[in-house]
Amino acid sequence: MAKQRSTSITSQLSGNAVFAQSGGPTTVINSSMCGAVLEAMKHKKVFKTLYGAKNGILGVLQEELFDFGKEKLEDLKALRTTPAAAAGSCRYKVKSEADYARIVEVFSAHNIRYFFYAGGNDSMDTADKVSRLAHEKGYELIAVGIPKTIDNDLACTDHCPGFGSVAKYNATMIMEAGRDTEALYTADTTTVQEVMGRNAGWIAASTGLARREDDDAPHLIYVPEIQVSLNTMATQIRAVLKRLGRCVITVCEGCKNEKGEYLSEIGGSFSNDAFGHKQLGGVGEYLANFIEAEIGVKARRNKAGTLQRNGMHWASKTDLDEAFMCGQEAVRQALKGVSGYMVTLVRKSNNPYTCVTGVAKLSDVANGESLLPRDFMDGPGTGISKKFRDYLAPLVRGEVRVPMHKDGLPQYARLKRKLLSRKCGEWKKS
Amino acid sequence: MAKQRSTSITSQLSGNAVFAQSGGPTTVINSSMCGAVLEAMKHKKVFKTLYGAKNGILGVLQEELFDFGKEKLEDLKALRTTPAAAAGSCRYKVKSEADYARIVEVFSAHNIRYFFYAGGNDSMDTADKVSRLAHEKGYELIAVGIPKTIDNDLACTDHCPGFGSVAKYNATMIMEAGRDTEALYTADTTTVQEVMGRNAGWIAASTGLARREDDDAPHLIYVPEIQVSLNTMATQIRAVLKRLGRCVITVCEGCKNEKGEYLSEIGGSFSNDAFGHKQLGGVGEYLANFIEAEIGVKARRNKAGTLQRNGMHWASKTDLDEAFMCGQEAVRQALKGVSGYMVTLVRKSNNPYTCVTGVAKLSDVANGESLLPRDFMDGPGTGISKKFRDYLAPLVRGEVRVPMHKDGLPQYARLKRKLLSRKCGEWKKS
Repeated sequence: MAKQRSTSITSQLSGNAVFAQSGGPTTVINSSMCGAVLEAMKHKKVFKTLYGAKNGILGVLQEELFDFGKEKLEDLKALRTTPAAAAGSCRYKVKSEADYARIVEVFSAHNIRYFFYAGGNDSMDTADKVSRLAHEKGYELIAVGIPKTIDNDLACTDHCPGFGSVAKYNATMIMEAGRDTEALYTADTTTVQEVMGRNAGWIAASTGLARREDDDAPHLIYVPEIQVSLNTMATQIRAVLKRLGRCVITVCEGCKNEKGEYLSEIGGSFSNDAFGHKQLGGVGEYLANFIEAEIGVKARRNKAGTLQRNGMHWASKTDLDEAFMCGQEAVRQALKGVSGYMVTLVRKSNNPYTCVTGVAKLSDVANGESLLPRDFMDGPGTGISKKFRDYLAPLVRGEVRVPMHKDGLPQYARLKRKLLSRKCGEWKKS
Repeated sequence: MAKQRSTSITSQLSGNAVFAQSGGPTTVINSSMCGAVLEAMKHKKVFKTLYGAKNGILGVLQEELFDFGKEKLEDLKALRTTPAAAAGSCRYKVKSEADYARIVEVFSAHNIRYFFYAGGNDSMDTADKVSRLAHEKGYELIAVGIPKTIDNDLACTDHCPGFGSVAKYNATMIMEAGRDTEALYTADTTTVQEVMGRNAGWIAASTGLARREDDDAPHLIYVPEIQVSLNTMATQIRAVLKRLGRCVITVCEGCKNEKGEYLSEIGGSFSNDAFGHKQLGGVGEYLANFIEAEIGVKARRNKAGTLQRNGMHWASKTDLDEAFMCGQEAVRQALKGVSGYMVTLVRKSNNPYTCVTGVAKLSDVANGESLLPRDFMDGPGTGISKKFRDYLAPLVRGEVRVPMHKDGLPQYARLKRKLLSRKCGEWKKS
């Protein structure tokens, strides 16, 4: 069972630590790792060696570990403004008992006593189960989660590191694409912008921040939480076209029709996937095709794809700083003996915006999901409410000064990740 | 015939001026308009009233003109950092004699003696023909072109305002998307990024600047000037996958196979357009489908679409300043009595980078097209050469400080564009 050790315990657990990154990269997950690693370096009596797992939990399973102490300090510091997952990430979902046992075996072989895992709810589940298994086996291990997801769908936290930056990115993009449509509506009459989000519409809704006045883009936002028929969409699009002569639409990749079917999966005459894949991501193309065929106006398709989750050149400074703080705090919690918890963000006030850290049980985070509340959208459900605007604006504030190379492009860091010699046998993938 | 009047002529042509924007918006076309309008405001004896044409030449044909003097000066100044076409643009191609006559009729009705037109080669053709027709009719008119196109395909100029910013945007994006693929190659193994460019591969090639080292993204660039069969592409992609375990590809919307057919148009089993449209823009989807079906690895699709041509939040300062300079210079040339010419950019040196303005005949620009030279690409034609790197880097250097709103997003200007009363009859579209 996960436990919280009292801070009064004098014999502090000492050993090595491992840091791992999981799932889709974000603009600021490296900032969290930077915060955690730099903080841990201050406590050499507790954290003997600081390991990184190459490609997340896969790196643990495959015993592919590297030593942060062998990296240049300037590179470690530069992680703060380096997008994506510098230690490497993966989408491997740990399920089998053999895998969990393997993780504890590798930890034990390298005397890893601290496990810092940045990820979403699946990762928190993994961290929780590893921590429980270690406890059952009598292996002392402290596991602390660091929240990470652009989707903002983690339970128990006001918001997630990664969300503020993807929101700032997409809202700015739709503002700029909106100006394009405004300028060229006589030819490019509608623009459909597809954004990420499988179950939760946080990212799609965040583009609504760009709409300061009624006529601003985006004119319509479609989120998974509010199911809309294609007929209703057509009516709404026609109404905007009638009023403004143009229409800019944000559509979330996980949007569903009135029957609860993913628009990207219903196929039929508008399907754009010749292979019959049921892959999320084609909804923008689908909706644009629908507009051209049914409404008869040209539709531009924008799909930032993975660009939106790595946009360090236009990150939110608030988000970047909070990500760093979460990493730092994970180490501080571990020093207090806290295990089985994830660091959370707790908003204290909006004006001025102040936010501190808290903790939540890994199991609570693992089993929860935070969807966009209905009252964060407006009455018709195609725009955002003042309540959401107030929630969102502080999270996207502030720009980040990215180090620049003389060629005019950003200068991002890269870790050497020289792998340690193996101590365990080959991992047998189950 | 277009003519260049001697600067010694003492009786300077006095009257009204009109500024118009044409074709696809760019990040910096408003900077050119800003430069031109602010410069013209200094010469009130020559330019009596400064008009803008709403939506380019359509605004002239429809007699939809507004007065820059009625706009707030702060808005006019803020155009410098406002993306897209603030006066409005269009894709209308003037062809008929009736249309040309109509343009001269509207100019004459409003005593418009100066015509400043920002656009690509079609627009330069229009400006040239209007100028010739006015001359034939004995109507004194000075027409000066301002170069604008993200495609960088205008003849007679070292490069075009708009290109530096789209290059900086796309190169940064592919650098960031490359980090994503590097982090998550075990799941998202390939990434295909589609960029704009119908006939010219300048934009696609510009992403090569992000590849400082061999293993950096983009690993393969496909441009229209170098036709490649799908088989060759598959071989090249497999080779990168074998070497790195991942592959990031830039593909230009106008890419063609070895038979010279647009990849976006060949259709067949990989076609993603259920409606049989022959529309450019689907090449990224096409190539990603091909990779998944033929090579059997997952392919991410990124298509920035209109985002890439409006990215003021990440514009090139060099580009922005040169666009302003071109607008300014167009007015200065007009003051000298120069007509029938477009302002050009003349690179004087690369180290340090210095660039001045020149002029070229509108007819020469109209009839030319600048494609990517073969020696700007490397041997295999899938990466860029040092020569192109040296050409490109100065154009993307410098960042632009965008005015920010308290909600954390940019603050862009918008013109009121209050239309003048009409003096001519209704335009009959021919």
